[in-house]
Amino acid sequence: MTSNLNDFLTTRKQAIEDYLFTYVQELHIPEDLKSSMLYSLEAGGKRLRPVLVLALLNAYGKSEKDGIPVGCAVEMIHTYSLIHDDLPCMDDDDLRRGKPTNHKVYGEATAVLAGDALLTESFRLITSQLSDNVSADQKLRIIDELVKSAGALGMVGGQFDDMEAEQKQQIPLAELESIHARKTGKLLTFSVAAGAMLAGASDDDIENLREFSYHIGIAFQIRDDILDLEGSEEKIGKRVGSDTANEKSTYPSLLTLSGAKEKLNEHITRAKKIVSNLELEQQLLHDLCDLIASRDH
Amino acid sequence: MTSNLNDFLTTRKQAIEDYLFTYVQELHIPEDLKSSMLYSLEAGGKRLRPVLVLALLNAYGKSEKDGIPVGCAVEMIHTYSLIHDDLPCMDDDDLRRGKPTNHKVYGEATAVLAGDALLTESFRLITSQLSDNVSADQKLRIIDELVKSAGALGMVGGQFDDMEAEQKQQIPLAELESIHARKTGKLLTFSVAAGAMLAGASDDDIENLREFSYHIGIAFQIRDDILDLEGSEEKIGKRVGSDTANEKSTYPSLLTLSGAKEKLNEHITRAKKIVSNLELEQQLLHDLCDLIASRDH
Repeated sequence: MTSNLNDFLTTRKQAIEDYLFTYVQELHIPEDLKSSMLYSLEAGGKRLRPVLVLALLNAYGKSEKDGIPVGCAVEMIHTYSLIHDDLPCMDDDDLRRGKPTNHKVYGEATAVLAGDALLTESFRLITSQLSDNVSADQKLRIIDELVKSAGALGMVGGQFDDMEAEQKQQIPLAELESIHARKTGKLLTFSVAAGAMLAGASDDDIENLREFSYHIGIAFQIRDDILDLEGSEEKIGKRVGSDTANEKSTYPSLLTLSGAKEKLNEHITRAKKIVSNLELEQQLLHDLCDLIASRDH
Repeated sequence: MTSNLNDFLTTRKQAIEDYLFTYVQELHIPEDLKSSMLYSLEAGGKRLRPVLVLALLNAYGKSEKDGIPVGCAVEMIHTYSLIHDDLPCMDDDDLRRGKPTNHKVYGEATAVLAGDALLTESFRLITSQLSDNVSADQKLRIIDELVKSAGALGMVGGQFDDMEAEQKQQIPLAELESIHARKTGKLLTFSVAAGAMLAGASDDDIENLREFSYHIGIAFQIRDDILDLEGSEEKIGKRVGSDTANEKSTYPSLLTLSGAKEKLNEHITRAKKIVSNLELEQQLLHDLCDLIASRDH
Protein backbone atom coordinates (compact mmCIF):
# COMPACT_ATOMS: atom_id res chain seq x y z
CA MET A 1 0.00 0.00 0.00
CA THR A 2 1.39 3.43 -0.93
CA SER A 3 1.94 5.83 1.96
CA ASN A 4 -0.49 8.31 0.35
CA LEU A 5 -3.26 5.73 0.29
CA ASN A 6 -2.45 4.65 3.81
CA ASP A 7 -2.66 8.24 5.01
CA PHE A 8 -5.95 8.77 3.16
CA LEU A 9 -7.52 5.61 4.64
CA THR A 10 -6.40 6.38 8.19
CA THR A 11 -7.48 10.03 8.30
CA ARG A 12 -10.84 9.45 6.56
CA LYS A 13 -11.72 6.41 8.66
CA GLN A 14 -11.15 8.57 11.72
CA ALA A 15 -13.26 11.46 10.40
CA ILE A 16 -16.10 9.11 9.49
CA GLU A 17 -16.08 7.31 12.83
CA ASP A 18 -15.95 10.56 14.80
CA TYR A 19 -18.96 11.90 12.95
CA LEU A 20 -20.92 8.63 13.00
CA PHE A 21 -20.50 7.86 16.69
CA THR A 22 -21.22 11.45 17.75
CA TYR A 23 -24.34 11.60 15.60
CA VAL A 24 -25.81 8.44 17.12
CA GLN A 25 -24.70 9.27 20.66
CA GLU A 26 -26.59 12.57 20.49
CA LEU A 27 -29.91 11.02 19.41
CA HIS A 28 -32.64 11.20 22.08
CA ILE A 29 -33.62 7.55 21.87
CA PRO A 30 -33.91 4.66 24.37
CA GLU A 31 -30.45 4.11 25.88
CA ASP A 32 -30.28 0.33 25.44
CA LEU A 33 -31.39 0.60 21.83
CA LYS A 34 -28.67 3.20 21.27
CA SER A 35 -26.08 0.91 22.89
CA SER A 36 -27.03 -1.89 20.56
CA MET A 37 -26.81 0.39 17.50
CA LEU A 38 -23.41 1.75 18.63
CA TYR A 39 -22.08 -1.71 19.44
CA SER A 40 -22.34 -2.79 15.82
CA LEU A 41 -21.33 0.59 14.39
CA GLU A 42 -18.21 0.56 16.56
CA ALA A 43 -17.34 -3.03 15.64
CA GLY A 44 -15.43 -1.36 12.88
CA GLY A 45 -14.19 -2.63 9.60
CA LYS A 46 -12.47 -0.72 6.87
CA ARG A 47 -15.31 1.81 6.32
CA LEU A 48 -14.78 1.10 2.63
CA ARG A 49 -18.17 2.48 1.58
CA PRO A 50 -17.78 5.93 3.17
CA VAL A 51 -14.11 6.01 2.11
CA LEU A 52 -15.27 5.56 -1.50
CA VAL A 53 -17.65 8.53 -1.21
CA LEU A 54 -14.77 10.70 0.03
CA ALA A 55 -12.32 9.30 -2.54
CA LEU A 56 -14.59 10.38 -5.38
CA LEU A 57 -14.90 13.91 -4.01
CA ASN A 58 -11.14 13.99 -3.55
CA ALA A 59 -10.50 12.71 -7.08
CA TYR A 60 -12.69 15.49 -8.48
CA GLY A 61 -10.82 18.05 -6.37
CA LYS A 62 -13.90 18.93 -4.31
CA SER A 63 -14.40 19.45 -0.57
CA GLU A 64 -15.10 16.16 1.17
CA LYS A 65 -17.29 17.76 3.86
CA ASP A 66 -20.72 16.69 2.59
CA GLY A 67 -19.35 13.26 1.79
CA ILE A 68 -19.11 12.47 5.49
CA PRO A 69 -22.85 12.36 6.34
CA VAL A 70 -23.57 10.58 3.05
CA GLY A 71 -20.79 8.09 3.80
CA CYS A 72 -22.15 7.57 7.31
CA ALA A 73 -25.61 6.92 5.84
CA VAL A 74 -24.32 4.06 3.69
CA GLU A 75 -22.24 2.75 6.62
CA MET A 76 -25.42 2.66 8.77
CA ILE A 77 -27.17 0.66 6.06
CA HIS A 78 -24.22 -1.72 5.71
CA THR A 79 -24.19 -2.18 9.50
CA TYR A 80 -27.94 -2.83 9.76
CA SER A 81 -27.64 -5.45 7.02
CA LEU A 82 -24.91 -7.27 8.97
CA ILE A 83 -27.03 -7.26 12.15
CA HIS A 84 -30.06 -8.73 10.35
CA ASP A 85 -27.96 -11.20 8.29
CA ASP A 86 -26.37 -12.58 11.46
CA LEU A 87 -29.74 -13.38 13.10
CA PRO A 88 -30.45 -17.04 13.93
CA CYS A 89 -33.21 -17.18 11.28
CA MET A 90 -30.78 -15.88 8.64
CA ASP A 91 -27.07 -16.89 8.65
CA ASP A 92 -27.07 -17.66 12.39
CA ASP A 93 -23.61 -16.27 13.07
CA ASP A 94 -22.22 -15.91 16.59
CA LEU A 95 -19.11 -13.96 15.63
CA ARG A 96 -18.56 -10.95 13.43
CA ARG A 97 -15.08 -9.46 13.07
CA GLY A 98 -13.98 -11.54 16.05
CA LYS A 99 -16.67 -10.13 18.38
CA PRO A 100 -20.00 -11.66 19.45
CA THR A 101 -22.76 -10.66 17.01
CA ASN A 102 -25.36 -8.09 18.03
CA HIS A 103 -28.11 -10.55 18.96
CA LYS A 104 -25.69 -12.62 21.08
CA VAL A 105 -25.07 -9.52 23.22
CA TYR A 106 -28.43 -7.69 23.14
CA GLY A 107 -30.93 -10.43 22.26
CA GLU A 108 -32.73 -11.01 19.00
CA ALA A 109 -35.59 -8.55 19.49
CA THR A 110 -33.21 -5.66 20.16
CA ALA A 111 -31.03 -6.71 17.22
CA VAL A 112 -34.04 -6.59 14.86
CA LEU A 113 -35.02 -3.14 16.15
CA ALA A 114 -31.45 -1.78 16.13
CA GLY A 115 -31.23 -2.80 12.47
CA ASP A 116 -34.58 -1.18 11.69
CA ALA A 117 -33.49 1.99 13.49
CA LEU A 118 -30.15 2.23 11.65
CA LEU A 119 -31.83 1.71 8.29
CA THR A 120 -34.46 4.38 8.97
CA GLU A 121 -32.08 6.91 10.50
CA SER A 122 -29.63 6.68 7.61
CA PHE A 123 -31.95 8.74 5.41
CA ARG A 124 -32.02 11.61 7.89
CA LEU A 125 -28.28 12.07 7.50
CA ILE A 126 -29.10 13.14 3.95
CA THR A 127 -32.27 15.16 4.65
CA SER A 128 -30.85 17.11 7.58
CA GLN A 129 -27.04 16.98 7.73
CA LEU A 130 -25.81 18.30 4.38
CA SER A 131 -24.65 21.85 3.75
CA ASP A 132 -26.49 24.36 1.56
CA ASN A 133 -23.97 23.57 -1.18
CA VAL A 134 -26.07 20.48 -1.89
CA SER A 135 -29.38 21.37 -3.59
CA ALA A 136 -32.68 19.79 -2.59
CA ASP A 137 -32.75 18.02 -5.97
CA GLN A 138 -29.29 16.55 -5.37
CA LYS A 139 -30.36 15.30 -1.95
CA LEU A 140 -33.46 13.63 -3.39
CA ARG A 141 -31.38 12.02 -6.13
CA ILE A 142 -29.00 10.61 -3.51
CA ILE A 143 -31.87 9.29 -1.37
CA ASP A 144 -33.47 7.69 -4.42
CA GLU A 145 -30.14 6.06 -5.32
CA LEU A 146 -29.73 4.82 -1.75
CA VAL A 147 -33.20 3.23 -1.70
CA LYS A 148 -32.61 1.46 -5.01
CA SER A 149 -29.20 0.23 -3.84
CA ALA A 150 -30.26 -0.89 -0.37
CA GLY A 151 -33.79 -2.24 -0.90
CA ALA A 152 -35.46 -5.12 -2.72
CA LEU A 153 -34.04 -3.92 -6.05
CA GLY A 154 -30.54 -4.06 -4.57
CA MET A 155 -29.00 -5.39 -1.39
CA VAL A 156 -32.12 -6.90 0.24
CA GLY A 157 -33.04 -8.63 -3.04
CA GLY A 158 -29.49 -9.98 -3.35
CA GLN A 159 -29.54 -11.29 0.21
CA PHE A 160 -32.89 -12.96 -0.47
CA ASP A 161 -31.61 -14.71 -3.62
CA ASP A 162 -28.40 -15.67 -1.80
CA MET A 163 -30.48 -17.43 0.88
CA GLU A 164 -32.46 -19.26 -1.78
CA ALA A 165 -29.25 -20.22 -3.63
CA GLU A 166 -27.86 -21.81 -0.48
CA GLN A 167 -30.60 -24.42 -0.73
CA LYS A 168 -29.16 -25.51 -4.09
CA GLN A 169 -26.05 -27.61 -4.74
CA GLN A 170 -24.35 -25.40 -7.30
CA ILE A 171 -25.51 -22.27 -9.11
CA PRO A 172 -24.36 -20.92 -12.50
CA LEU A 173 -21.71 -18.19 -12.54
CA ALA A 174 -24.17 -15.65 -13.98
CA GLU A 175 -26.52 -16.18 -11.03
CA LEU A 176 -23.65 -15.92 -8.56
CA GLU A 177 -22.63 -12.61 -10.15
CA SER A 178 -26.19 -11.28 -10.11
CA ILE A 179 -26.47 -12.09 -6.40
CA HIS A 180 -23.18 -10.44 -5.47
CA ALA A 181 -23.76 -7.47 -7.75
CA ARG A 182 -26.82 -6.74 -5.63
CA LYS A 183 -25.88 -8.07 -2.18
CA THR A 184 -22.50 -6.32 -1.90
CA GLY A 185 -22.04 -4.50 -5.21
CA LYS A 186 -24.97 -2.09 -5.05
CA LEU A 187 -23.88 -0.30 -1.89
CA LEU A 188 -20.38 0.11 -3.35
CA THR A 189 -21.94 1.54 -6.49
CA PHE A 190 -24.05 3.87 -4.37
CA SER A 191 -20.91 5.13 -2.63
CA VAL A 192 -19.12 5.85 -5.89
CA ALA A 193 -22.19 7.37 -7.59
CA ALA A 194 -23.15 9.50 -4.58
CA GLY A 195 -19.57 10.82 -4.27
CA ALA A 196 -19.64 11.73 -7.96
CA MET A 197 -23.08 13.36 -7.62
CA LEU A 198 -21.87 15.47 -4.69
CA ALA A 199 -18.83 16.42 -6.77
CA GLY A 200 -21.12 17.65 -9.54
CA ALA A 201 -19.88 15.05 -12.03
CA SER A 202 -21.60 14.82 -15.43
CA ASP A 203 -24.21 12.12 -16.07
CA ASP A 204 -21.75 10.50 -18.49
CA ASP A 205 -19.08 10.32 -15.81
CA ILE A 206 -21.59 8.88 -13.34
CA GLU A 207 -22.57 6.15 -15.81
CA ASN A 208 -18.91 5.26 -16.39
CA LEU A 209 -18.31 5.23 -12.64
CA ARG A 210 -21.22 2.83 -12.17
CA GLU A 211 -19.42 0.46 -14.48
CA PHE A 212 -16.17 1.06 -12.57
CA SER A 213 -17.88 0.16 -9.31
CA TYR A 214 -19.54 -2.90 -10.83
CA HIS A 215 -16.05 -4.24 -11.53
CA ILE A 216 -14.64 -3.37 -8.12
CA GLY A 217 -17.73 -4.94 -6.53
CA ILE A 218 -17.15 -8.26 -8.27
CA ALA A 219 -13.42 -8.02 -7.52
CA PHE A 220 -14.23 -7.36 -3.85
CA GLN A 221 -16.38 -10.49 -3.68
CA ILE A 222 -13.83 -12.72 -5.45
CA ARG A 223 -11.18 -11.53 -3.00
CA ASP A 224 -13.58 -12.40 -0.17
CA ASP A 225 -13.98 -15.92 -1.51
CA ILE A 226 -10.20 -16.29 -1.92
CA LEU A 227 -9.60 -15.08 1.65
CA ASP A 228 -12.00 -17.76 2.87
CA LEU A 229 -9.57 -20.31 1.39
CA GLU A 230 -6.19 -18.68 1.86
CA GLY A 231 -6.68 -15.96 4.49
CA SER A 232 -5.54 -15.68 8.08
CA GLU A 233 -8.34 -16.34 10.60
CA GLU A 234 -6.86 -13.71 12.87
CA LYS A 235 -7.01 -11.03 10.18
CA ILE A 236 -10.43 -11.80 8.66
CA GLY A 237 -12.04 -12.35 12.08
CA LYS A 238 -13.89 -15.53 11.11
CA ARG A 239 -13.20 -19.17 10.45
CA VAL A 240 -11.29 -19.93 7.23
CA GLY A 241 -12.85 -22.58 4.97
CA SER A 242 -16.44 -21.94 6.09
CA ASP A 243 -17.68 -21.54 2.49
CA THR A 244 -16.28 -24.98 1.60
CA ALA A 245 -17.73 -26.51 4.78
CA ASN A 246 -21.14 -24.99 3.93
CA GLU A 247 -20.85 -26.20 0.30
CA LYS A 248 -21.46 -22.63 -0.82
CA SER A 249 -21.06 -21.71 -4.49
CA THR A 250 -18.08 -19.35 -4.72
CA TYR A 251 -15.81 -18.05 -7.47
CA PRO A 252 -13.06 -20.57 -6.59
CA SER A 253 -15.57 -23.44 -6.43
CA LEU A 254 -16.95 -22.54 -9.87
CA LEU A 255 -13.70 -21.41 -11.55
CA THR A 256 -10.88 -23.07 -9.52
CA LEU A 257 -8.65 -20.92 -7.31
CA SER A 258 -6.35 -19.85 -10.13
CA GLY A 259 -9.33 -19.14 -12.39
CA ALA A 260 -10.82 -16.94 -9.67
CA LYS A 261 -7.55 -15.03 -9.28
CA GLU A 262 -7.41 -14.46 -13.02
CA LYS A 263 -10.99 -13.16 -13.03
CA LEU A 264 -10.20 -10.86 -10.12
CA ASN A 265 -7.32 -9.34 -12.10
CA GLU A 266 -9.50 -8.91 -15.17
CA HIS A 267 -12.10 -6.93 -13.23
CA ILE A 268 -9.45 -4.76 -11.58
CA THR A 269 -7.84 -4.04 -14.95
CA ARG A 270 -11.19 -3.04 -16.44
CA ALA A 271 -12.03 -0.84 -13.43
CA LYS A 272 -8.69 0.98 -13.71
CA LYS A 273 -9.11 1.48 -17.45
CA ILE A 274 -12.47 3.21 -16.92
CA VAL A 275 -10.87 5.59 -14.41
CA SER A 276 -8.02 6.30 -16.82
CA ASN A 277 -10.53 7.67 -19.32
CA LEU A 278 -12.09 10.14 -16.88
CA GLU A 279 -10.97 13.68 -16.21
CA LEU A 280 -10.13 13.39 -12.56
CA GLU A 281 -7.13 12.70 -10.34
CA GLN A 282 -6.65 8.98 -10.98
CA GLN A 283 -3.97 7.82 -8.56
CA LEU A 284 -6.16 7.45 -5.46
CA LEU A 285 -8.83 5.43 -7.31
CA HIS A 286 -6.18 3.19 -8.89
CA ASP A 287 -4.62 2.64 -5.46
CA LEU A 288 -8.04 1.69 -4.06
CA CYS A 289 -8.46 -0.85 -6.87
CA ASP A 290 -5.13 -2.42 -5.93
CA LEU A 291 -6.16 -2.48 -2.29
CA ILE A 292 -9.40 -4.30 -3.10
CA ALA A 293 -7.48 -6.85 -5.18
CA SER A 294 -4.85 -7.59 -2.56
CA ARG A 295 -6.47 -6.91 0.84
CA ASP A 296 -5.83 -9.49 3.55
CA HIS A 297 -9.04 -8.80 5.55
CA MET B 1 -71.09 6.49 10.77
CA THR B 2 -72.37 9.20 8.42
CA SER B 3 -72.88 8.19 4.81
CA ASN B 4 -70.43 10.87 3.69
CA LEU B 5 -67.70 9.44 5.89
CA ASN B 6 -68.56 5.92 4.79
CA ASP B 7 -68.29 6.96 1.17
CA PHE B 8 -64.98 8.73 1.80
CA LEU B 9 -63.50 5.71 3.58
CA THR B 10 -64.63 3.22 0.95
CA THR B 11 -63.48 5.16 -2.11
CA ARG B 12 -60.12 6.20 -0.62
CA LYS B 13 -59.31 2.74 0.71
CA GLN B 14 -59.86 1.45 -2.81
CA ALA B 15 -57.70 4.13 -4.43
CA ILE B 16 -54.89 3.50 -1.95
CA GLU B 17 -54.97 -0.26 -2.33
CA ASP B 18 -55.06 -0.06 -6.14
CA TYR B 19 -52.00 2.16 -6.16
CA LEU B 20 -50.11 0.25 -3.48
CA PHE B 21 -50.58 -3.23 -4.91
CA THR B 22 -49.80 -2.10 -8.47
CA TYR B 23 -46.66 -0.29 -7.36
CA VAL B 24 -45.26 -3.35 -5.59
CA GLN B 25 -46.40 -5.79 -8.27
CA GLU B 26 -44.45 -3.82 -10.89
CA LEU B 27 -41.14 -3.86 -8.98
CA HIS B 28 -38.42 -5.99 -10.59
CA ILE B 29 -37.51 -7.91 -7.45
CA PRO B 30 -37.30 -11.60 -6.47
CA GLU B 31 -40.80 -13.10 -6.90
CA ASP B 32 -41.01 -14.87 -3.53
CA LEU B 33 -39.87 -11.75 -1.71
CA LYS B 34 -42.54 -9.77 -3.55
CA SER B 35 -45.21 -12.36 -2.62
CA SER B 36 -44.27 -12.02 1.02
CA MET B 37 -44.43 -8.21 0.87
CA LEU B 38 -47.80 -8.31 -0.92
CA TYR B 39 -49.21 -10.91 1.46
CA SER B 40 -48.94 -8.53 4.38
CA LEU B 41 -49.87 -5.43 2.40
CA GLU B 42 -53.02 -7.19 1.17
CA ALA B 43 -53.93 -8.42 4.66
CA GLY B 44 -55.79 -5.19 4.81
CA GLY B 45 -56.99 -3.16 7.69
CA LYS B 46 -58.67 0.21 7.63
CA ARG B 47 -55.78 2.02 5.88
CA LEU B 48 -56.28 4.69 8.53
CA ARG B 49 -52.87 6.29 8.02
CA PRO B 50 -53.21 6.92 4.27
CA VAL B 51 -56.86 7.90 4.77
CA LEU B 52 -55.68 10.62 7.17
CA VAL B 53 -53.25 12.01 4.57
CA LEU B 54 -56.10 12.25 2.05
CA ALA B 55 -58.55 13.62 4.63
CA LEU B 56 -56.24 16.55 5.36
CA LEU B 57 -55.85 17.40 1.67
CA ASN B 58 -59.62 17.12 1.31
CA ALA B 59 -60.26 19.34 4.34
CA TYR B 60 -57.99 22.01 2.86
CA GLY B 61 -59.84 21.74 -0.45
CA LYS B 62 -56.78 20.48 -2.31
CA SER B 63 -56.30 17.68 -4.84
CA GLU B 64 -55.67 14.37 -3.10
CA LYS B 65 -53.48 13.00 -5.92
CA ASP B 66 -50.07 13.39 -4.28
CA GLY B 67 -51.49 12.14 -1.01
CA ILE B 68 -51.78 8.65 -2.44
CA PRO B 69 -48.04 7.81 -2.79
CA VAL B 70 -47.34 9.52 0.55
CA GLY B 71 -50.17 7.55 2.16
CA CYS B 72 -48.84 4.33 0.62
CA ALA B 73 -45.38 5.12 2.02
CA VAL B 74 -46.71 5.30 5.58
CA GLU B 75 -48.84 2.19 5.00
CA MET B 76 -45.70 0.30 3.90
CA ILE B 77 -43.94 1.38 7.08
CA HIS B 78 -46.94 0.40 9.22
CA THR B 79 -47.01 -3.00 7.48
CA TYR B 80 -43.27 -3.64 7.89
CA SER B 81 -43.59 -2.86 11.61
CA LEU B 82 -46.38 -5.44 11.99
CA ILE B 83 -44.29 -8.10 10.21
CA HIS B 84 -41.28 -7.50 12.46
CA ASP B 85 -43.40 -7.14 15.64
CA ASP B 86 -45.05 -10.51 14.99
CA LEU B 87 -41.70 -12.38 14.76
CA PRO B 88 -41.07 -15.14 17.33
CA CYS B 89 -38.29 -13.07 18.95
CA MET B 90 -40.67 -10.10 19.35
CA ASP B 91 -44.39 -10.62 20.14
CA ASP B 92 -44.44 -14.14 18.65
CA ASP B 93 -47.89 -13.86 17.09
CA ASP B 94 -49.29 -16.55 14.80
CA LEU B 95 -52.35 -14.61 13.70
CA ARG B 96 -52.86 -11.07 12.43
CA ARG B 97 -56.29 -9.88 11.35
CA GLY B 98 -57.46 -13.47 11.39
CA LYS B 99 -54.76 -14.68 8.96
CA PRO B 100 -51.47 -16.48 9.67
CA THR B 101 -48.67 -13.96 10.23
CA ASN B 102 -46.03 -13.40 7.56
CA HIS B 103 -43.33 -15.60 9.10
CA LYS B 104 -45.82 -18.47 9.59
CA VAL B 105 -46.39 -18.49 5.82
CA TYR B 106 -43.00 -17.44 4.39
CA GLY B 107 -40.55 -18.29 7.16
CA GLU B 108 -38.71 -15.96 9.51
CA ALA B 109 -35.82 -15.03 7.22
CA THR B 110 -38.15 -13.93 4.43
CA ALA B 111 -40.32 -12.04 6.93
CA VAL B 112 -37.29 -10.08 8.19
CA LEU B 113 -36.26 -9.22 4.62
CA ALA B 114 -39.81 -8.38 3.48
CA GLY B 115 -40.00 -5.93 6.38
CA ASP B 116 -36.62 -4.42 5.52
CA ALA B 117 -37.67 -4.11 1.87
CA LEU B 118 -40.98 -2.40 2.68
CA LEU B 119 -39.28 0.05 5.02
CA THR B 120 -36.61 0.96 2.45
CA GLU B 121 -38.96 1.14 -0.53
CA SER B 122 -41.39 3.46 1.27
CA PHE B 123 -39.00 6.38 0.82
CA ARG B 124 -38.91 5.94 -2.95
CA LEU B 125 -42.63 6.60 -3.14
CA ILE B 126 -41.75 10.12 -2.02
CA THR B 127 -38.56 10.62 -4.06
CA SER B 128 -39.96 9.32 -7.33
CA GLN B 129 -43.77 9.19 -7.34
CA LEU B 130 -44.96 12.72 -6.57
CA SER B 131 -46.05 15.26 -9.17
CA ASP B 132 -44.16 18.44 -10.00
CA ASN B 133 -46.65 20.30 -7.81
CA VAL B 134 -44.59 19.12 -4.84
CA SER B 135 -41.27 20.96 -4.60
CA ALA B 136 -38.00 19.19 -3.81
CA ASP B 137 -37.93 21.01 -0.46
CA GLN B 138 -41.42 19.73 0.40
CA LYS B 139 -40.42 16.18 -0.47
CA LEU B 140 -37.33 16.39 1.74
CA ARG B 141 -39.41 17.79 4.59
CA ILE B 142 -41.84 14.88 4.26
CA ILE B 143 -39.01 12.30 4.17
CA ASP B 144 -37.41 13.90 7.24
CA GLU B 145 -40.76 13.78 9.05
CA LEU B 146 -41.23 10.14 8.07
CA VAL B 147 -37.79 9.15 9.38
CA LYS B 148 -38.39 10.90 12.71
CA SER B 149 -41.83 9.30 13.03
CA ALA B 150 -40.82 5.78 12.02
CA GLY B 151 -37.32 5.39 13.47
CA ALA B 152 -35.68 5.25 16.87
CA LEU B 153 -37.04 8.71 17.76
CA GLY B 154 -40.56 7.47 17.01
CA MET B 155 -42.15 4.11 16.30
CA VAL B 156 -39.08 1.86 16.66
CA GLY B 157 -38.15 3.57 19.94
CA GLY B 158 -41.72 3.14 21.20
CA GLN B 159 -41.73 -0.54 20.28
CA PHE B 160 -38.40 -0.98 22.08
CA ASP B 161 -39.69 0.66 25.27
CA ASP B 162 -42.92 -1.33 25.01
CA MET B 163 -40.91 -4.57 24.97
CA GLU B 164 -38.94 -3.43 28.01
CA ALA B 165 -42.14 -2.39 29.82
CA GLU B 166 -43.58 -5.87 29.34
CA GLN B 167 -40.88 -7.18 31.66
CA LYS B 168 -42.32 -4.98 34.45
CA GLN B 169 -45.46 -5.59 36.52
CA GLN B 170 -47.11 -2.21 36.11
CA ILE B 171 -45.87 1.03 34.56
CA PRO B 172 -46.96 4.63 35.35
CA LEU B 173 -49.57 6.24 33.07
CA ALA B 174 -47.05 8.83 31.82
CA GLU B 175 -44.74 6.05 30.62
CA LEU B 176 -47.62 4.20 28.97
CA GLU B 177 -48.57 7.41 27.12
CA SER B 178 -44.98 8.06 26.04
CA ILE B 179 -44.76 4.53 24.64
CA HIS B 180 -48.02 4.76 22.71
CA ALA B 181 -47.36 8.31 21.54
CA ARG B 182 -44.30 6.91 19.78
CA LYS B 183 -45.31 3.32 18.94
CA THR B 184 -48.65 4.13 17.30
CA GLY B 185 -49.04 7.91 17.64
CA LYS B 186 -46.08 9.08 15.59
CA LEU B 187 -47.18 7.49 12.32
CA LEU B 188 -50.65 8.99 12.77
CA THR B 189 -49.02 12.37 13.37
CA PHE B 190 -46.90 11.88 10.28
CA SER B 191 -50.03 11.21 8.22
CA VAL B 192 -51.79 14.34 9.45
CA ALA B 193 -48.67 16.55 9.16
CA ALA B 194 -47.69 15.24 5.72
CA GLY B 195 -51.25 15.78 4.45
CA ALA B 196 -51.13 19.35 5.75
CA MET B 197 -47.66 19.92 4.24
CA LEU B 198 -48.86 18.70 0.84
CA ALA B 199 -51.86 21.02 1.19
CA GLY B 200 -49.51 23.94 1.76
CA ALA B 201 -50.79 24.58 5.30
CA SER B 202 -49.03 27.22 7.42
CA ASP B 203 -46.48 26.18 10.04
CA ASP B 204 -48.94 27.32 12.71
CA ASP B 205 -51.64 25.05 11.34
CA ILE B 206 -49.18 22.16 11.16
CA GLU B 207 -48.23 22.63 14.81
CA ASN B 208 -51.89 22.68 15.82
CA LEU B 209 -52.53 19.59 13.74
CA ARG B 210 -49.66 17.79 15.47
CA GLU B 211 -51.50 18.39 18.74
CA PHE B 212 -54.74 17.21 17.14
CA SER B 213 -53.08 14.00 16.05
CA TYR B 214 -51.46 13.50 19.44
CA HIS B 215 -54.97 13.36 20.92
CA ILE B 216 -56.40 11.06 18.27
CA GLY B 217 -53.35 8.82 18.69
CA ILE B 218 -53.97 8.40 22.40
CA ALA B 219 -57.71 7.97 21.77
CA PHE B 220 -56.93 5.31 19.16
CA GLN B 221 -54.83 3.37 21.67
CA ILE B 222 -57.40 3.62 24.48
CA ARG B 223 -60.06 2.31 22.10
CA ASP B 224 -57.69 -0.56 21.24
CA ASP B 225 -57.34 -1.45 24.91
CA ILE B 226 -61.12 -1.26 25.41
CA LEU B 227 -61.73 -3.51 22.39
CA ASP B 228 -59.38 -6.05 23.93
CA LEU B 229 -61.85 -6.23 26.85
CA GLU B 230 -65.22 -5.64 25.20
CA GLY B 231 -64.69 -6.30 21.48
CA SER B 232 -65.86 -9.07 19.21
CA GLU B 233 -63.11 -11.57 18.37
CA GLU B 234 -64.53 -11.96 14.91
CA LYS B 235 -64.32 -8.24 14.22
CA ILE B 236 -60.92 -7.47 15.75
CA GLY B 237 -59.35 -10.64 14.30
CA LYS B 238 -57.54 -11.65 17.48
CA ARG B 239 -58.28 -13.16 20.85
CA VAL B 240 -60.19 -10.88 23.28
CA GLY B 241 -58.64 -10.53 26.73
CA SER B 242 -55.06 -11.16 25.61
CA ASP B 243 -53.77 -7.99 27.35
CA THR B 244 -55.21 -9.16 30.66
CA ALA B 245 -53.84 -12.67 30.14
CA ASN B 246 -50.40 -11.18 29.42
CA GLU B 247 -50.66 -8.85 32.45
CA LYS B 248 -49.98 -5.94 30.14
CA SER B 249 -50.33 -2.37 31.43
CA THR B 250 -53.28 -0.80 29.58
CA TYR B 251 -55.51 2.24 30.05
CA PRO B 252 -58.31 0.14 31.61
CA SER B 253 -55.84 -1.65 33.91
CA LEU B 254 -54.42 1.69 35.11
CA LEU B 255 -57.64 3.76 35.10
CA THR B 256 -60.49 1.18 35.28
CA LEU B 257 -62.70 0.60 32.26
CA SER B 258 -64.98 3.57 32.93
CA GLY B 259 -61.97 5.80 33.64
CA ALA B 260 -60.45 4.77 30.31
CA LYS B 261 -63.69 5.58 28.49
CA GLU B 262 -63.78 8.98 30.12
CA LYS B 263 -60.19 9.67 29.08
CA LEU B 264 -60.96 8.57 25.54
CA ASN B 265 -63.78 11.11 25.36
CA GLU B 266 -61.57 13.86 26.76
CA HIS B 267 -58.97 13.33 24.07
CA ILE B 268 -61.58 13.22 21.31
CA THR B 269 -63.15 16.45 22.61
CA ARG B 270 -59.78 18.19 22.65
CA ALA B 271 -58.92 16.93 19.16
CA LYS B 272 -62.22 18.24 17.77
CA LYS B 273 -61.75 21.60 19.46
CA ILE B 274 -58.37 22.07 17.76
CA VAL B 275 -59.93 21.37 14.38
CA SER B 276 -62.76 23.82 15.12
CA ASN B 277 -60.21 26.63 15.41
CA LEU B 278 -58.63 25.96 12.02
CA GLU B 279 -59.69 27.43 8.70
CA LEU B 280 -60.58 24.26 6.86
CA GLU B 281 -63.60 22.09 6.17
CA GLN B 282 -64.14 20.53 9.60
CA GLN B 283 -66.85 17.91 9.16
CA LEU B 284 -64.70 15.12 7.74
CA LEU B 285 -62.06 15.45 10.48
CA HIS B 286 -64.74 15.56 13.18
CA ASP B 287 -66.33 12.44 11.71
CA LEU B 288 -62.96 10.70 11.72
CA CYS B 289 -62.54 11.57 15.42
CA ASP B 290 -65.91 9.96 16.15
CA LEU B 291 -64.92 6.90 14.16
CA ILE B 292 -61.70 6.48 16.15
CA ALA B 293 -63.64 6.79 19.42
CA SER B 294 -66.31 4.26 18.52
CA ARG B 295 -64.71 1.83 16.04
CA ASP B 296 -65.42 -1.85 16.66
CA HIS B 297 -62.23 -3.19 15.00
